[in-house]
Amino acid sequence: MIKQLKPKSHKIAILAEGSFGVLESKTATVLVRYLSDNVVAVIDSTKADKDVGDVIGIGRGIPIVRNLADAMQFQPTMLSIGIAPPGGELPAAWRVIIREAICSGLHIMSGLHHFLSENTEFSELAAKHNVVLWDARKPPDNLPVATCKAADVDAAVILTVGSDCRVGKMLSGIEITNAARERGLNAEFCPTGQNGIMVWGWGIAIDAVVSDFTAGAAEQIVLEGAKNHDLLIVEGQGSLVHPGYSGVTLSLLHGSMPDAMIFCHQPSRQEVARYTVPLPSLPEMITQYEMLAAPIKPAKVIGLALNCFDLTEKEAQDAIATAEDETGLPATDVVRFGSEKLVVAIQKGC
Amino acid sequence: MIKQLKPKSHKIAILAEGSFGVLESKTATVLVRYLSDNVVAVIDSTKADKDVGDVIGIGRGIPIVRNLADAMQFQPTMLSIGIAPPGGELPAAWRVIIREAICSGLHIMSGLHHFLSENTEFSELAAKHNVVLWDARKPPDNLPVATCKAADVDAAVILTVGSDCRVGKMLSGIEITNAARERGLNAEFCPTGQNGIMVWGWGIAIDAVVSDFTAGAAEQIVLEGAKNHDLLIVEGQGSLVHPGYSGVTLSLLHGSMPDAMIFCHQPSRQEVARYTVPLPSLPEMITQYEMLAAPIKPAKVIGLALNCFDLTEKEAQDAIATAEDETGLPATDVVRFGSEKLVVAIQKGC
Repeated sequence: MIKQLKPKSHKIAILAEGSFGVLESKTATVLVRYLSDNVVAVIDSTKADKDVGDVIGIGRGIPIVRNLADAMQFQPTMLSIGIAPPGGELPAAWRVIIREAICSGLHIMSGLHHFLSENTEFSELAAKHNVVLWDARKPPDNLPVATCKAADVDAAVILTVGSDCRVGKMLSGIEITNAARERGLNAEFCPTGQNGIMVWGWGIAIDAVVSDFTAGAAEQIVLEGAKNHDLLIVEGQGSLVHPGYSGVTLSLLHGSMPDAMIFCHQPSRQEVARYTVPLPSLPEMITQYEMLAAPIKPAKVIGLALNCFDLTEKEAQDAIATAEDETGLPATDVVRFGSEKLVVAIQKGC
Repeated sequence: MIKQLKPKSHKIAILAEGSFGVLESKTATVLVRYLSDNVVAVIDSTKADKDVGDVIGIGRGIPIVRNLADAMQFQPTMLSIGIAPPGGELPAAWRVIIREAICSGLHIMSGLHHFLSENTEFSELAAKHNVVLWDARKPPDNLPVATCKAADVDAAVILTVGSDCRVGKMLSGIEITNAARERGLNAEFCPTGQNGIMVWGWGIAIDAVVSDFTAGAAEQIVLEGAKNHDLLIVEGQGSLVHPGYSGVTLSLLHGSMPDAMIFCHQPSRQEVARYTVPLPSLPEMITQYEMLAAPIKPAKVIGLALNCFDLTEKEAQDAIATAEDETGLPATDVVRFGSEKLVVAIQKGC
């Protein structure tokens, strides 16, 4: 039921026109971070001729080019749409580029809410040129209402939760999974969003599922992951205090029925991004998650993943120490200081 | 953007074959309760020749008939699908009846997740016979992500929340709205589910909205209702402790941004229906709603609507007194004892 795809078998050009390196191109950044061997070029005329590494600090050696024609010299087999704006709409100017890419024989990978495969013009063109339009956000058909079956899996289930969008729930999930594998654990990352799906090759974008079935989708992801693994790290979404996406967050919590949670947060963030909603304290937010989990399946937050990208090394260390004091839980910045602490907490806690 | 429809201008035959009077036919019961002047017959061969009043205690005088042909003698102008099972699928055997109804010139009103208007066979047949397929559950296109605009409306906003599905969130909302109007308040009921929409003629079925936009849909409902009214009673959905639907509940809480909440509960219910999830205590459930509302817009539960349909009069009075003691809030059974107490609480609280 859940499609398995293989982005790692492709040479990828990323379309990020006008926005590479800013928040809207989170997808582009994630692809560069986790598929750097596959990304052959990034298209953004406003940053043309720079190196990807100079703009986002990772992906050194990958060129930024002016347009699709310039990208073609690197022989891509796939064009990836590198943005996922709120609402997921496709910028009108990009339609031309997508048409060109299809005509050049490239498969298209997109995480937008607007499904390319449901656009008659694109789908007819794709059929003609024998390429695939892969909408990573498109959910499978016939998802069920959640049934609490996720409680029955043999695997230990860890959910990354958090204070807001874009604080590192996906990235921490991947990093923890990789670190757990390095320690010999049979761990699997369970993607619940389009970026995670593009990187990892399977999953369901639960924010694109009709809300009656969102928890059911989370349940399906856990059942699928548990078939062949002992430890599942489920990618969290949104936040319980996010005015737009809190429902997605709670569906995921109740559908995936985790044994424990890792709380993700950006210490410098005081408000929900794009809203004037102040974030409650760390202990208050942690209590909310644990209180809501309890009636369905009790689960504790057992560690903190702090995203300190905008702090100096010293500030990051201080923020981690403060958070550990405030919560009594082990904390780390998984990018800067690794995920070992959290893997140890998971092994102790499950 | 939100369709306005007029079920009150129709003569309605309700299709409830094999299930009239049981939980699956909640839609049929609701239509009989609030559109009794419009309902001309109920179709259920297993209860044919009985009176609707003998089966569900309301709607006396409305006949139950064996099949569509028998219903046609009462000259209906619309057939309503009288069930809304979990998942919303259309029973295969009913397809034949729907085809017959369309060919007989009846409009079709449905609250199923499976949209009749998207079924090629039905829609071609409807076009041929010049009838409308009204999918009350089908959400409008282009719903936005929630923006917290509901906080800016001049109207007072009350949300009915609750312990589970089918405890009376819609019914309490309608009863409170009617009682408020009788006291001269410019009140409006804001439907968020297919049954409320069928009865009241407008609204959005938020459980059919893609989860990223569910809170946005709730916001749109409040903005629409506030255009012409001073007091909005927003229909709640699900429960924060419902394993399948909790996300819908939280999206509605954060999107509608109520000033206060009415908590709905069935005192005899100990577990979430269809699940083995024990319900927390009333104070615990109330605290959950208030705690989750607080970061976005603080709101208190100011009254309780208790569904005592399965209790004797004495038991109902005792249950109400116990709940009032336990919570310190005014409580009533709106069907048995009226909504006055709650309207008074709303007038005091807003």
